[in-house]
Amino acid sequence: MPSLRVYNAIVLTMVSGDEPISPAELVSADGQIEYVGPQRADIEESYDETIDAGGGVLLPGLVNAHTHLAMTLMRGYADDMPLQEWLTTKIWPTEAKLQEQDVYWGAMLGILEMLRAGITCFCDMYHFFNAGTRAAIDGGIRALPSGVLLSFADKIYNVEQAVEFALEVRKNAPSRIVPMLGPHAPYSCTDEMLRQAAAAAAEHGLGIHIHLSETADEVQQVLDATGMRPVAYLDKLGLLDNHVTAAHCVHVDDAELEMLADKQVGIVHCPTSNMKLASGFAPVLKMLAAGACVGLGTDGAASNNRLDMLQEARMAALEHKAHSGDPGVVKAEEALRMATVGSARAVGLGDRVGMLQVGKRADFTMISLQEAHNQPLHNLYSQLVYAAEAADVVCTAVDGVVLYRDGVYPHLDAKHIIARANECAHRLVNS
Amino acid sequence: MPSLRVYNAIVLTMVSGDEPISPAELVSADGQIEYVGPQRADIEESYDETIDAGGGVLLPGLVNAHTHLAMTLMRGYADDMPLQEWLTTKIWPTEAKLQEQDVYWGAMLGILEMLRAGITCFCDMYHFFNAGTRAAIDGGIRALPSGVLLSFADKIYNVEQAVEFALEVRKNAPSRIVPMLGPHAPYSCTDEMLRQAAAAAAEHGLGIHIHLSETADEVQQVLDATGMRPVAYLDKLGLLDNHVTAAHCVHVDDAELEMLADKQVGIVHCPTSNMKLASGFAPVLKMLAAGACVGLGTDGAASNNRLDMLQEARMAALEHKAHSGDPGVVKAEEALRMATVGSARAVGLGDRVGMLQVGKRADFTMISLQEAHNQPLHNLYSQLVYAAEAADVVCTAVDGVVLYRDGVYPHLDAKHIIARANECAHRLVNS
Repeated sequence: MPSLRVYNAIVLTMVSGDEPISPAELVSADGQIEYVGPQRADIEESYDETIDAGGGVLLPGLVNAHTHLAMTLMRGYADDMPLQEWLTTKIWPTEAKLQEQDVYWGAMLGILEMLRAGITCFCDMYHFFNAGTRAAIDGGIRALPSGVLLSFADKIYNVEQAVEFALEVRKNAPSRIVPMLGPHAPYSCTDEMLRQAAAAAAEHGLGIHIHLSETADEVQQVLDATGMRPVAYLDKLGLLDNHVTAAHCVHVDDAELEMLADKQVGIVHCPTSNMKLASGFAPVLKMLAAGACVGLGTDGAASNNRLDMLQEARMAALEHKAHSGDPGVVKAEEALRMATVGSARAVGLGDRVGMLQVGKRADFTMISLQEAHNQPLHNLYSQLVYAAEAADVVCTAVDGVVLYRDGVYPHLDAKHIIARANECAHRLVNS
Repeated sequence: MPSLRVYNAIVLTMVSGDEPISPAELVSADGQIEYVGPQRADIEESYDETIDAGGGVLLPGLVNAHTHLAMTLMRGYADDMPLQEWLTTKIWPTEAKLQEQDVYWGAMLGILEMLRAGITCFCDMYHFFNAGTRAAIDGGIRALPSGVLLSFADKIYNVEQAVEFALEVRKNAPSRIVPMLGPHAPYSCTDEMLRQAAAAAAEHGLGIHIHLSETADEVQQVLDATGMRPVAYLDKLGLLDNHVTAAHCVHVDDAELEMLADKQVGIVHCPTSNMKLASGFAPVLKMLAAGACVGLGTDGAASNNRLDMLQEARMAALEHKAHSGDPGVVKAEEALRMATVGSARAVGLGDRVGMLQVGKRADFTMISLQEAHNQPLHNLYSQLVYAAEAADVVCTAVDGVVLYRDGVYPHLDAKHIIARANECAHRLVNS
């Protein structure tokens, strides 16, 4: 990985207590941050690449802590429908036709979109794990891929296979690819699958990515089947003794919340998806007050329809103000913190990414605040969360490698990817 | 006004029942639409300007039915605060320092932002009415400006002056500038002012722009002072017999709602502002069911912080799904309808703008769906509302005059405007 210097920037490290630094610079070598701080006068070293930020804001790459990336293929295919109808008449029948190449090109399309939106890392759960993983490898982005373990599909893909695939990826893929196990949810997996996944995760040090209490109905299902609420049930099965990334957590009661905080489960709040599917309002204020680990995710493009973490930060700030009746909650800085360091911790990569700090990986994004909609600049956090949009991202880098800059993807053929993804999408919905 | 032809477009007329037309073209002369429909093979006429839309989506210009435009100067200046603290410690003290030039440059900044976001018309209420009006004239955009009539400031600006100014503007300004009267709200104006405004509006055929029942507190104030809820109170004063554009209408009961629908008051729903200030959830589903006239607005940039009607359409769709628990409500098409024809009717310009139809003014915007985040394209309305962002706007025209195209403002010096607005903003908050 080449060495890189970005200078003439406003740096937001997202380290707690740090003020914005300006003018500032960041230097990376071998994909790691070697310096970040006030701009130095005499730079003697030479770098493989030097970027003048032009006064842009440099911040940690945004971390999309829950998505189903290849669902980009179904973006806008089935909106404004009740959840069960959406799943049973549109999403599942389409997914039943999925082939490996669809997942690859759908994921590549999502990677284009995410890089353009300043996202450097995503935590994914989807079918054809290998295809999604290959896309992440080819795309240059940091990823935590997992397949989908479902009780009704364990003939096709079971825990044993999932572990085998994960270990193979861990052995052979670049270190930025961190495989996880993906039991779909407490209501959609058998006891046995969840127990197996927990044991395998513990044995091999794999993280677990799971949906948890997204809807009131599924909570009732688990209660009816097990006599326990989902969090206690997962704990009983030993699942919460691993690193767990739990998407949604909308319908969790106070006792569950306490357990999630206590076990430092990575909670992934998905505000746009929850609103669009009318799943409910996640108790995010209580989560934050309890010291839980809370990140943000876009969920899949079929229920969002964007992969845009600036939007998720804004939606988190707005949703909880509206729902609580208090305009002082989830302040802009807190929302941006959830989208960076919060998400990094929620996916188990808090030691590597989510803040700009010496020793961390050089995953960053740069946002220009030059245009009219970002002027004047009274408060950096407010501007990024409430005023900026994905298109204001001018540069995105992972491991110190620039993957997007000023509309160009230096290592990807965007036109080809979009064309192939479109072919896949049209075959899926028309066949 | 030059003649114009835009071809090779996907046209969304927003006329009820019309399907998207593709390939399609639009022709305007003297600022009026002369043809809109399927692309014709043999075009013999020549036009002053011809635009190849390149497959972009051509739709009616978005109408921002409620804003305080020059508040762009306070964008991000005071976020995440309780409403009263926000007003009394930040907004009002800053507004007390406003000078005419601030309003002009703040409004010009807002016009840059709105044109870039596909907005061709805005309904404004702000201090220094003349400065805001001059900005709208200079900016080339369609506008319905009004000053702010407040009981505690009627020494500075009273109904008589407001009427005089409005009549002068109507006489001298281009016809795209439609002045209104702006009594601030039932709780912040005296009986007498409201009565006078109602009478003057009737006498001169002026519309009235007013805030209505934005917060529960102000409704209680009106109840305490008058014994009536705000809508009945305004009706008693004769105000609702004019064209009224009523912003917010969050706290209206069923009887009020019926009266608003019956009187065809133009209700302006401001979802982002309502959420950010935690004002409550406007009963938009009931309004639509009652056949009320409902448009959308951004409110001022101090409480949004964007002037982006695509965002408002998305927020309207998401907010009411989440609040009602029904993902099938406020579908994408309905949300876009509110942002175009709904808003046009709400400000009293339904006969002129809001739909692409022969005889209407040639106010349109063009949105490119080429980039990754807008692919694949399964549903045009879904894409525009849920996936597209302001930056996808590639062209905006008012009265057939192109005011924004591919990042360039042919008739405005964007750099100069941004610099002057910044000077004003910094003086305001630092003096």
